[in-house]
Amino acid sequence: MQVEGLAIEALAQQVPTPFYCYSSKAIASNYQRYSDAFAGLDSLICYAVKANSNQAILATLARLGAGADTVSEGEIRRALAAGISADKIVFAGVGKSVAEIRYALAQDILQFNVESEPELMRISEQAHSMGKRARVSIRVNPDVEAKTHAKITTGMAENKFGIAIDLAPALYKRAANLPGIEVSGVDVHIGSQLTELTPFDQAFSKVADLVTSLQHHGIDIQVIDIGGGLGINYGEQSQEPDITTYASFAKAHLGHLGCKIIVEPGRSILGNAGVLVSRVEYVKTGQQRHFLILDAAMNDLIRPSMYDAYHHIVTVTEQTQKVTYDIVGPVCETGDTFAKGRTIGQCQSGDLVAIMGAGAYGAVMASHYNSRLNAPEVLVKDDQYSIIRERIDYDTLIAMDSLPSWL
Amino acid sequence: MQVEGLAIEALAQQVPTPFYCYSSKAIASNYQRYSDAFAGLDSLICYAVKANSNQAILATLARLGAGADTVSEGEIRRALAAGISADKIVFAGVGKSVAEIRYALAQDILQFNVESEPELMRISEQAHSMGKRARVSIRVNPDVEAKTHAKITTGMAENKFGIAIDLAPALYKRAANLPGIEVSGVDVHIGSQLTELTPFDQAFSKVADLVTSLQHHGIDIQVIDIGGGLGINYGEQSQEPDITTYASFAKAHLGHLGCKIIVEPGRSILGNAGVLVSRVEYVKTGQQRHFLILDAAMNDLIRPSMYDAYHHIVTVTEQTQKVTYDIVGPVCETGDTFAKGRTIGQCQSGDLVAIMGAGAYGAVMASHYNSRLNAPEVLVKDDQYSIIRERIDYDTLIAMDSLPSWL
Repeated sequence: MQVEGLAIEALAQQVPTPFYCYSSKAIASNYQRYSDAFAGLDSLICYAVKANSNQAILATLARLGAGADTVSEGEIRRALAAGISADKIVFAGVGKSVAEIRYALAQDILQFNVESEPELMRISEQAHSMGKRARVSIRVNPDVEAKTHAKITTGMAENKFGIAIDLAPALYKRAANLPGIEVSGVDVHIGSQLTELTPFDQAFSKVADLVTSLQHHGIDIQVIDIGGGLGINYGEQSQEPDITTYASFAKAHLGHLGCKIIVEPGRSILGNAGVLVSRVEYVKTGQQRHFLILDAAMNDLIRPSMYDAYHHIVTVTEQTQKVTYDIVGPVCETGDTFAKGRTIGQCQSGDLVAIMGAGAYGAVMASHYNSRLNAPEVLVKDDQYSIIRERIDYDTLIAMDSLPSWL
Repeated sequence: MQVEGLAIEALAQQVPTPFYCYSSKAIASNYQRYSDAFAGLDSLICYAVKANSNQAILATLARLGAGADTVSEGEIRRALAAGISADKIVFAGVGKSVAEIRYALAQDILQFNVESEPELMRISEQAHSMGKRARVSIRVNPDVEAKTHAKITTGMAENKFGIAIDLAPALYKRAANLPGIEVSGVDVHIGSQLTELTPFDQAFSKVADLVTSLQHHGIDIQVIDIGGGLGINYGEQSQEPDITTYASFAKAHLGHLGCKIIVEPGRSILGNAGVLVSRVEYVKTGQQRHFLILDAAMNDLIRPSMYDAYHHIVTVTEQTQKVTYDIVGPVCETGDTFAKGRTIGQCQSGDLVAIMGAGAYGAVMASHYNSRLNAPEVLVKDDQYSIIRERIDYDTLIAMDSLPSWL
C-alpha cells in the first residue's frame, strides 16, 4: 500500500504507529474538483478548518487558493498563520464570545455567519465600539431533512444553529439598521456527511427565494454562503455524491442572483486524503469471535465510537486469506471498537492495518484519554514525507499538570 | 454555590470559564467510604487512574494511601510521579505493548491483569528475557449483565476484555508452567457506572467458585481483584448504590478465601467531586425552544454527546424563576448538547452554570476540537485553590504543528 510515492510499510519503519498519514496530492485533487465544479460562478472555496486544522494542511490549501471557514478564534488564528488572508476568512459558530468577535473584527475578516439575534446585537455593539462595521451573513435554517447522523444534522427549523428561514426577513430588516452591521449575505448549512444531494437542491431553492425577496425589499445581498456538508464514501456506499451535480444545483438556483457564492467543504477535501496507520498488538481468539487488538484507539479516532461511523479497514500488505474480526483498540471501554464482524486479510501480531477515510474529524478530535500519547500526523508529497505534528513524550504529557502548594 | 470554602462566583473572577473545579475534601471523603467499607478485609484500594489522571488528583489520593489501577505506560508513569509506590500499582488493559510490559516489569509493579492468552505469553517472554517473573491475575468474564451503557459494559462472555470464566482453569494451569509468570490472583471487572448491585453479587459468587477450584488444584491464588465500576448518581436516579452493601458482597463471597482484595474505584471517587463551571454566552429563543449556549462544549466534556449521559446542571446563583432550555455548547455539531429540555434557573448572558458530576471522565477525555483551548482544572482545599492544569494559549496550540520543508 502506497501513499503517493511512499510505501506505508517503509514509512512505519520510520514513524512508530499509530500515525495519521495524509496525501498532498489527494488534497489538491479534491480541492481542484471543487474549483472545477464551481468554475462558472463567482465563487470562493472556504475550507472548513474544523475537519483538519493542522497548519501544514491549511498551508497546503492556502497555496491552492483556498479561503477558510472557521468556527473559533483558534481557527481564525490558524488560518492566518497558514497564510490564508483575512479577506478569505468566514467566521461561523453559535457561541462567538466578545473576545473572539473583537479579534475577528481587528483582523478585518471577510464576514461573520451569524447564528442568532443576540449574536447579531453583540457583533453590532462590538463593531460600533471599535469604529467598524461587521460584514454579516445570517445563517438560515431551510427546514430540510439532511438524512445524515442526528448528531451532525443542522438544517432543521429547531436546533441551536441559525434562525428559521421564515424569520429571516424581519431580522435582516433589523440588521440593516444596526450601527455596527453591514449586511453582506445569506448563509445556509444543513449538516455534515450528506450522501444524498436532494436536500441541497431543496435548500438552495429556498435560499434563492429568500435572496430574491430580500433584494426586492432593498437589502443588498452580495454573498450567498452555501455551507458545506458534502459526504464522502467511507466504504459502505457504492458511490460518492457528485460535486459537479452539487455545483449544478447552486448554479441553477443561485447563479442568476448576481452574488458571490461561498462553499465550505471540509470532509470532502480531507476525508479520503488521510489514513490512520496502526499495528496489530494482539490477535485474540474468543469462543465465537476473533479480536484484532490494534495500537490505535478511540482517543486517536473517535468517529466509530461516537457516531457509529463506518471506516473501511485494510491490511497494508495484501493477504489472500480472509478472516472476520472485531477490530478494537486498547482503551478500557467496549466502545473502543473500530469495526464489528469485519472481514479483512488475516493478521498476525505486528502486522500493519490502515483505517481509511481518516483525514477529516480524526486528529482534530483526538485526546490523551487513558494517558495515551497522541498519534503523530505525517504529510506525504511525492516520495517525501514530513511529520507535521509530533508525538509528545510522557514527560511533556505529565508536565501539563502541576501540584498545589499543599501537596 | 460553594466548593469547600470558596464561592464559585469568586473563583470565576480569577479563572476564566470554562474550568473544572474539584474538591479535595470530597475526594478524601469518597476514598474514606471505600476504606471504611472494606476495613474488615485485607484490602488495597487502587484508584482507577483513567477516571481522572491529573497529577494533583493522584497525589491527593497517594497521600490517603491509595494504590493505582492503570491501563497504560502513561498511567503507570503518572502514578509513580504522584508518589504511588510500584507495589501498589496494577496494570490492566487489552493492548499492552512490549515496551509497556518491559517498563512495568522494570518498575516491579504489583501485578499485571492479563486480558488474553497471547498477552500472557508475551508477558512471560519479556519477563523471562529480563530475568524476572511477572505477577499476574487473569481477568475473567463471569458473563453477567452489568445493566449499564453498552459502550462501557465489559463482563459478558464475548468482548475484547478478559477470558470466559469457563476457560480460566486451563489458562491458569498453563500460566503456572510459564517461565516468566508467577500466578498471583484472579481479576474481574464487569463494567462502569453500575447502579444496581446484583451484578456484583453474581460476579463475586462466580469468582469465589473459580478461586476455590483453582486453590483445590494447587494454584496459589493470593489476590482477588474485584475491579471497579460502582456508579454514581448523576442526578437522575433517586439514590446512589451503597458502598457498604457492595463491600458486604465481597466479604460474604470472598472473605474466607485468605486472599488480599483489590478494589478499583474511579468514578465513585472523583465523579461527584468535580464540576465543570461555564458561563452562558447567549440565550437564544427559538420558535418552540429556548437555547442556553454555554462557553463549555463537547470537547471539554464529551459524556453527554458520547454516551447520552445525564449530568445535573444548575445555576451558580440560585434563581427562583425556572425555564426549560436546550443547553448546548458552541461546537459546530448538533451533538454538542449537554441537555435537552432541561428546566433550570432562568439565565442571562454572562451567568454561571455548573455541570455537576464532572470529576470523572471529563478532563481526561477532553480534546482541542474546533481549535478550542482546554478548560483548565482547579483543585480546591478549604479556602485555597490551585490551578492544577493551565489553559494553554493559542501560540502553544498552533506550535504543536510544523510545516514541511516544501511549504
